[in-house]
Amino acid sequence: MPASALNVPTILFGGDYNPDQWPREVWDEDVRLMKEAGVNAVTVGVFAWSTLEPREGEFDFAWLDDVMDLMAKNNIGVILATPTASPPPWFTLSHPDGLPVTKDGVHYIHGSRDTYNPSAPSYRNAARIITRKLAERYAGHPALLMWHLHNEYGTISYGPHTDAEFRNWLIRKYSTLDNLNKVWNSRFWSQQYATWEEIFAPQATQYLPNPSAILDFKRFCADQLRVVLDDQIEIMREVSPNTPLTTNFMLPTWNHFNQWDFAADIDVVSIDHYLDSTTMDGEAHVAFASELARSFNNGQPWMVMEQGTTVIYDYAAGRVYPKAPGRMARNTLQYIAHGSNSSLFFQWRTPLTGAEFFHSGMIPHTGENTRAWREIVDLGHTLHQLAEVTNAPAHNSRTNTAKIAIVWEPDAWWSAETPAMPSNDVAFLPALREVHKALWLEGFAADFVQLGAPLEGYDLVLVPNFIAVSDAQAHNLTQFVRSGGHAAVWFFAGSTDENLNVRVGDTFTAAFADLLGIKVDEHWPLPTGEFRELSNQMSGFSWGESVATTTAITLATYRSADLKDKPAITRNTFGAGTATYVSTQIRGTELRALMREIVLNAGIDKTHPQAGDGLEIVRRFSGEHTYLFVLNHTDSSHTVSASGYELLTDTPITSQITVAPFGYAVLREDTPTR
Amino acid sequence: MPASALNVPTILFGGDYNPDQWPREVWDEDVRLMKEAGVNAVTVGVFAWSTLEPREGEFDFAWLDDVMDLMAKNNIGVILATPTASPPPWFTLSHPDGLPVTKDGVHYIHGSRDTYNPSAPSYRNAARIITRKLAERYAGHPALLMWHLHNEYGTISYGPHTDAEFRNWLIRKYSTLDNLNKVWNSRFWSQQYATWEEIFAPQATQYLPNPSAILDFKRFCADQLRVVLDDQIEIMREVSPNTPLTTNFMLPTWNHFNQWDFAADIDVVSIDHYLDSTTMDGEAHVAFASELARSFNNGQPWMVMEQGTTVIYDYAAGRVYPKAPGRMARNTLQYIAHGSNSSLFFQWRTPLTGAEFFHSGMIPHTGENTRAWREIVDLGHTLHQLAEVTNAPAHNSRTNTAKIAIVWEPDAWWSAETPAMPSNDVAFLPALREVHKALWLEGFAADFVQLGAPLEGYDLVLVPNFIAVSDAQAHNLTQFVRSGGHAAVWFFAGSTDENLNVRVGDTFTAAFADLLGIKVDEHWPLPTGEFRELSNQMSGFSWGESVATTTAITLATYRSADLKDKPAITRNTFGAGTATYVSTQIRGTELRALMREIVLNAGIDKTHPQAGDGLEIVRRFSGEHTYLFVLNHTDSSHTVSASGYELLTDTPITSQITVAPFGYAVLREDTPTR
Amino acid sequence: MPASALNVPTILFGGDYNPDQWPREVWDEDVRLMKEAGVNAVTVGVFAWSTLEPREGEFDFAWLDDVMDLMAKNNIGVILATPTASPPPWFTLSHPDGLPVTKDGVHYIHGSRDTYNPSAPSYRNAARIITRKLAERYAGHPALLMWHLHNEYGTISYGPHTDAEFRNWLIRKYSTLDNLNKVWNSRFWSQQYATWEEIFAPQATQYLPNPSAILDFKRFCADQLRVVLDDQIEIMREVSPNTPLTTNFMLPTWNHFNQWDFAADIDVVSIDHYLDSTTMDGEAHVAFASELARSFNNGQPWMVMEQGTTVIYDYAAGRVYPKAPGRMARNTLQYIAHGSNSSLFFQWRTPLTGAEFFHSGMIPHTGENTRAWREIVDLGHTLHQLAEVTNAPAHNSRTNTAKIAIVWEPDAWWSAETPAMPSNDVAFLPALREVHKALWLEGFAADFVQLGAPLEGYDLVLVPNFIAVSDAQAHNLTQFVRSGGHAAVWFFAGSTDENLNVRVGDTFTAAFADLLGIKVDEHWPLPTGEFRELSNQMSGFSWGESVATTTAITLATYRSADLKDKPAITRNTFGAGTATYVSTQIRGTELRALMREIVLNAGIDKTHPQAGDGLEIVRRFSGEHTYLFVLNHTDSSHTVSASGYELLTDTPITSQITVAPFGYAVLREDTPTR
Repeated sequence: MPASALNVPTILFGGDYNPDQWPREVWDEDVRLMKEAGVNAVTVGVFAWSTLEPREGEFDFAWLDDVMDLMAKNNIGVILATPTASPPPWFTLSHPDGLPVTKDGVHYIHGSRDTYNPSAPSYRNAARIITRKLAERYAGHPALLMWHLHNEYGTISYGPHTDAEFRNWLIRKYSTLDNLNKVWNSRFWSQQYATWEEIFAPQATQYLPNPSAILDFKRFCADQLRVVLDDQIEIMREVSPNTPLTTNFMLPTWNHFNQWDFAADIDVVSIDHYLDSTTMDGEAHVAFASELARSFNNGQPWMVMEQGTTVIYDYAAGRVYPKAPGRMARNTLQYIAHGSNSSLFFQWRTPLTGAEFFHSGMIPHTGENTRAWREIVDLGHTLHQLAEVTNAPAHNSRTNTAKIAIVWEPDAWWSAETPAMPSNDVAFLPALREVHKALWLEGFAADFVQLGAPLEGYDLVLVPNFIAVSDAQAHNLTQFVRSGGHAAVWFFAGSTDENLNVRVGDTFTAAFADLLGIKVDEHWPLPTGEFRELSNQMSGFSWGESVATTTAITLATYRSADLKDKPAITRNTFGAGTATYVSTQIRGTELRALMREIVLNAGIDKTHPQAGDGLEIVRRFSGEHTYLFVLNHTDSSHTVSASGYELLTDTPITSQITVAPFGYAVLREDTPTR
Repeated sequence: MPASALNVPTILFGGDYNPDQWPREVWDEDVRLMKEAGVNAVTVGVFAWSTLEPREGEFDFAWLDDVMDLMAKNNIGVILATPTASPPPWFTLSHPDGLPVTKDGVHYIHGSRDTYNPSAPSYRNAARIITRKLAERYAGHPALLMWHLHNEYGTISYGPHTDAEFRNWLIRKYSTLDNLNKVWNSRFWSQQYATWEEIFAPQATQYLPNPSAILDFKRFCADQLRVVLDDQIEIMREVSPNTPLTTNFMLPTWNHFNQWDFAADIDVVSIDHYLDSTTMDGEAHVAFASELARSFNNGQPWMVMEQGTTVIYDYAAGRVYPKAPGRMARNTLQYIAHGSNSSLFFQWRTPLTGAEFFHSGMIPHTGENTRAWREIVDLGHTLHQLAEVTNAPAHNSRTNTAKIAIVWEPDAWWSAETPAMPSNDVAFLPALREVHKALWLEGFAADFVQLGAPLEGYDLVLVPNFIAVSDAQAHNLTQFVRSGGHAAVWFFAGSTDENLNVRVGDTFTAAFADLLGIKVDEHWPLPTGEFRELSNQMSGFSWGESVATTTAITLATYRSADLKDKPAITRNTFGAGTATYVSTQIRGTELRALMREIVLNAGIDKTHPQAGDGLEIVRRFSGEHTYLFVLNHTDSSHTVSASGYELLTDTPITSQITVAPFGYAVLREDTPTR
Repeated sequence: MPASALNVPTILFGGDYNPDQWPREVWDEDVRLMKEAGVNAVTVGVFAWSTLEPREGEFDFAWLDDVMDLMAKNNIGVILATPTASPPPWFTLSHPDGLPVTKDGVHYIHGSRDTYNPSAPSYRNAARIITRKLAERYAGHPALLMWHLHNEYGTISYGPHTDAEFRNWLIRKYSTLDNLNKVWNSRFWSQQYATWEEIFAPQATQYLPNPSAILDFKRFCADQLRVVLDDQIEIMREVSPNTPLTTNFMLPTWNHFNQWDFAADIDVVSIDHYLDSTTMDGEAHVAFASELARSFNNGQPWMVMEQGTTVIYDYAAGRVYPKAPGRMARNTLQYIAHGSNSSLFFQWRTPLTGAEFFHSGMIPHTGENTRAWREIVDLGHTLHQLAEVTNAPAHNSRTNTAKIAIVWEPDAWWSAETPAMPSNDVAFLPALREVHKALWLEGFAADFVQLGAPLEGYDLVLVPNFIAVSDAQAHNLTQFVRSGGHAAVWFFAGSTDENLNVRVGDTFTAAFADLLGIKVDEHWPLPTGEFRELSNQMSGFSWGESVATTTAITLATYRSADLKDKPAITRNTFGAGTATYVSTQIRGTELRALMREIVLNAGIDKTHPQAGDGLEIVRRFSGEHTYLFVLNHTDSSHTVSASGYELLTDTPITSQITVAPFGYAVLREDTPTR
């Protein structure tokens, strides 16, 4: 983690700082308050394009020079952003072709953010110019901590530029139209293409589109965002090669690019993660996001680039709720326990107006005499106490080790969102969150992996949802089990190849037929609200299947008349391992019971014998030390067996520690565990 | 039914067959399996335009020659489709003006199906060319059984071509602008037209449109689909005069053309009908669709062109459910009992990808070793046993005789959907389905008729919903009752003339004022969920009216304070018949009781004394024979008095037959009933 | 009220009359029926543009001359409308640029009403021409009673004309781009403008727009409607200076212009108000609309330009309900009690077709022998009996005096609708209706005022919702309380300045911080359906706040764990008055209790000691007399102490009068009360 090279405590603490949106006299006040809170890092310039380049080709860096110098003078590091996520108003007038067009042909203009077409040469050119200007001016600046490329990549556009680039992408993938026509089965509904020019991005049409084309378009859009990221990486590697690069991933509901692919070429993964629940679901979700981020970053320390301070975002209901006192700090410790080296917020100072004027801030509208500011100051103090957690050298800082891996594939998400599935209840993100939450509530840690990635090191691989599996991916999981690993695969998985072509054969889930030792001859989607009783006290929702075992044994059968006595959950011994199949959706406490059994079968231990039910106990590895984070998300106190040195109270612990309701402790362990 | 001219069993059995979407090596396998199942007819080419004409003006018939010859060789008839429902991608590039435009001005392009504007000369021309090419090449081919024109007509488009044709249509209807302005009352909201050029298709505008204009536009759209059908009929009559023509009607939710009008000029009505309920509502709906199809086809045998095999379509919920074992065959026998001479499915082989890759197939994704395929093979056997049911000569094959007729008018549906009605609870299709279902559950057969058609032969005519009644239609019903028929008319009926002009007078329902012997001075729409108790133990929903009798007697009054003691249901003796009026919506079992009383009043018998409550007993006439279909849609066995020869078990029945739960029997009756 | 200058009874009785939509022979019938009912005023020509100018520049006034002469001859006054709300079809062809464009870029054309862009010169020009023609032809006509300018102003359009005018508006408001950029905080998300040409009306864009820009655009749209109104006022003042002007305000859900601003330059306020509930909520709403209209018209008599006759409009449910017998007259007396000098309906004769063919009419579709017509005739008689109520000279006719004022600000409504608020539960109109209804049910009268208007004369000013308060407005309320007035302010009020810039300081609600004697450091939006118990038996919904008192006392605290013991309702003694703060949403009967306490604290009396709970007792002032309206909206009879002369029964009342269920009485009081 390059952060350790800075003359600052190693947990980065601060937030998005937009001095360009405030009068100069406020800046000094900012510095005073940053020092009061112990802020050591700020993210500058995320949306400053119109300030840096107020007219096309006219640049104004004076104010940013001031900011950089002020930060350097005050020993506050700057994560400097390229402002390319939001072109200035002049871009609309000089490059209307560079603006986004919707599926229905609506032309958007500026007035918000993210108003550009990533396939438009005019946009790419404008973005490269401002990126190079910034790089050239600030490379090597003493305040410069990191480059923050763009912001929350995620823009989709249709229109001629997109059509052209999509065609190029398809030519690269398929080489010939024959291949494409075959893979898309484009003769269906008379869509066979005779020339590449006949292919367009899948804009609005009469009725259902082609699912393989839709999936390819989602891949293309993701790759196109990668292209504009590459534009910036290339410039930075050339002009500012010694400063690390990041770009912030918006979690969890954005799926517009392939996180694994982005992570491979930046230096550190950072995430934006906003608490979205007033209940403990929020903490389950912090753990989910954290384990994702750690996994994207290959186990190395990662960063929280944005979280909210004292508000919870319920976008569906169109409102923000107050975050309970102390929760912000507890969530922050969760991120750090799972490998974050930062605690950054959106944003330093809440703006007085603008589209997010009631978003959160470290300094709220009502200023210093508020519980929000008091909690920020306290958090700064807490983080100072925890600094040693992050100061291991980068090469020795794999932050956690999980024996369970959950398969996260952008392709799986995109496939599940494709129209014309047998049931629109088939969903990716909710399935993964439910499985992860069940594990978390049971006290188990989990990584996320790609199905084609090396799986050695794991004891159990979970595939909660993945329709479109390639042969190589299927082979990889099969080899993993053959070599002694354990797998659990959920319904519908591997029913098609990677292009949403149903696999030919006598069973669905065909990619895993041998591995699972079953045949599935029929899907059995269930009406909303209906369920099917199983023989093991559980109930199945949303989906069922007509399953027959070949080599597997049956762990539970259906008891309903329609699927009477057919296997619902099976397990196959395969090579040196086992493969469990779950043919329906199990929920809540029943899913916890199922996961407990599956994990037990794989011989995996909890992170700590007492972990679970909201008592989160996480061990973070850092160089030669291990740190035990005990986070009590419940309203009862808990006494946990542990020994070491508690950092927040500066107290040695010999055998056990009591953690208050909603409290936490962090121990440098006497005997590091591996 | 021309099918009898073929050297195949007379029940057509098979489905949509798209060999162009599969490698050549699969074709032989197809033939093997078709023979195994007893398939004798396939529908070819429905969406093959891009294969037949891959580039504009370049045709490739070689593959289709192969298919036709292969089928001929194997004695499998081909229902050959014109592929005009889905223009190929090249059409978008060469004829962008031929593509559809939405009400909001969104221009659709290819990527799905039905992407054309029926008013565009370029589309009509391209469709005529491919139609003529097909006709010329395959007229007289030994495999050719029937021409299947287009597929599921139903496309609506706005834009300049539509505007122009709409103007022409209006000129033909109204001759002068004065007439149009008067009928539309276009001075309302200052819309008086001074030139024809000022009239446009009713595209998006600020607020409510003109209801008469909307109704005319719906009629125009229907007629425009008729125009493109006529293009094809004309070519076929010229080039291939000896082969019967059909086009498949999508039931029940599509109302984009006038089925009576289409049926008049094709040779046989075929329908696409997909089961949409996991409950017995599905069977009620099969009966509904069947009686509609029989009626559209003037009592002659008709065809099921598409049904699903083992799945149920819940489009509203976005999913498909499995169809219970045996249900496919039982539904098929329902269609046949009501006059179908075919059992065709969508589709022969489930595609591996494409927009409907999880739609149903005779060969499912998982192949032969599936209950789906086993049920198909069994069904083929069953149909073979029933072949004689359909082999009467066409001139002697009126399939059923019902004494009850329900009025089905596209105009009624379109009127009910017009904006600005007193209540948007006024609905056409649900009202008809409810009335039909009540009759079906009570064991009565029903035809559907147009209100202007000859009504002699019926004892009872029902008008569950028909706002916009012409003088001629009203006169026809009045004469029917005067001559001894019975009628039942529901609320709001005949309140306007055929152009949605409220009839001037002292009563709503004015078209039927004398016939009904009532005056309705006020509508009384009810809030959703509210009801009004009636004096006869029934409740009224959705709607009420302030009714006074003139010559009618009152069968039930309202008991609620607001309509206290006003007539709710009345009956007028008129000439030699009676006319019942139902001023509110009666539902469920209460509607069954009401229909029982109305049918009793008309002196009509059940199809069989034991019919009803899910025991469907239908008599099909075929030449000199009658066949009694006993279909048990319940989970209890039923013993039914009947005598004849049971075809499925090859058993003579002397006085009664027991039918198992969800079972069925088909008897050639000893004494044909008429 | 200029009406008194006419030779007609002074309560105007009649409705929209569109003889141009009917054959000439109907006109004589119209006159006969008008005389039967006592109609003395009709509104002519509201949508007659296409009849008056059937082709651009070709005018046809012959029919209108006829109508005017016919009315004059029969002593029926004409409120003559400019027909500019609905351009004729020719306008679409000759001035496509004058048509509206939606936020998404959809171009509307004619086919409905209100299809024009108020910023388009072509529209303004066409509207001025027809206005001047009408004015020149009918100025001084003996039938001419009043000019009715346009109809229900409310059209919004985007597109180039709008962009241009919006820029001009912004230049007038901000003078410099620097000012605008600062007030809008346009650097947020990189939207800083370098030239005015970069600013567009806030059309569709990627994500959230700028709230200050949205608020300015709403103000601009309102002002633009004012501009087109001014076009007409200018012509009328020049050509027809002696005839009063009105324009009808659509209440209550339209908020497209500033009613105070419109009212200031027309001669009399008129409203369109349609009953929207089958329950007593309807009567509460009649009172609400009436008190609004009276307030807009500065306490002078105003007009009901449109109400429905016998139907209730439930637009949300898409239906109309029948209005209970007698309710139309009772509602009409409510309007008059509160200051209306008219009882006009939409419309005289229900049209046979057109977009509103099931809207209401004085002559319903079913003609004279209907309860609708009988009620109209009866109402005409009743109004004749009440004529003296309205015949005071204009300078002496302030109609009512309320001691309570509720702040009604278009800005408050627009602000509450702005995106990105902390909760989308923050709403304007529902909040005002709830507060007004609570007062009405408690028997108190209320005016509506602008917060910047003179407040002397009131004892209590209520601010149920007003986020964006200017310094001047805050100062005005503060001075009012300082001088002895009482105020009640609801949550979130005054948190921003008039441009939605959050006020800097240590508290939200900062505009009123001193006045209220509290500090609010945090908003506390609540999830839908949740509530917080208060210490005074009430519950708070939707919203809460973290409040601390500075000088205020606490009337009630929160009892929930999250806001435990924090003040929920406070009261501050300030100068000679008090200011109450309500930090959450109180509803229903609890709100009635709260309002009772607040009104009691202000020492205000009911309109009559017995008023309340649906017994509405209103005193109308008219010259030297006062009239007591006793309106019984309940199903029980009520005996009310009163003395005077009852006009409807021609009976002197000495001490009390009994009013039947749903009945009413109107007394000329012996001793006028002031």
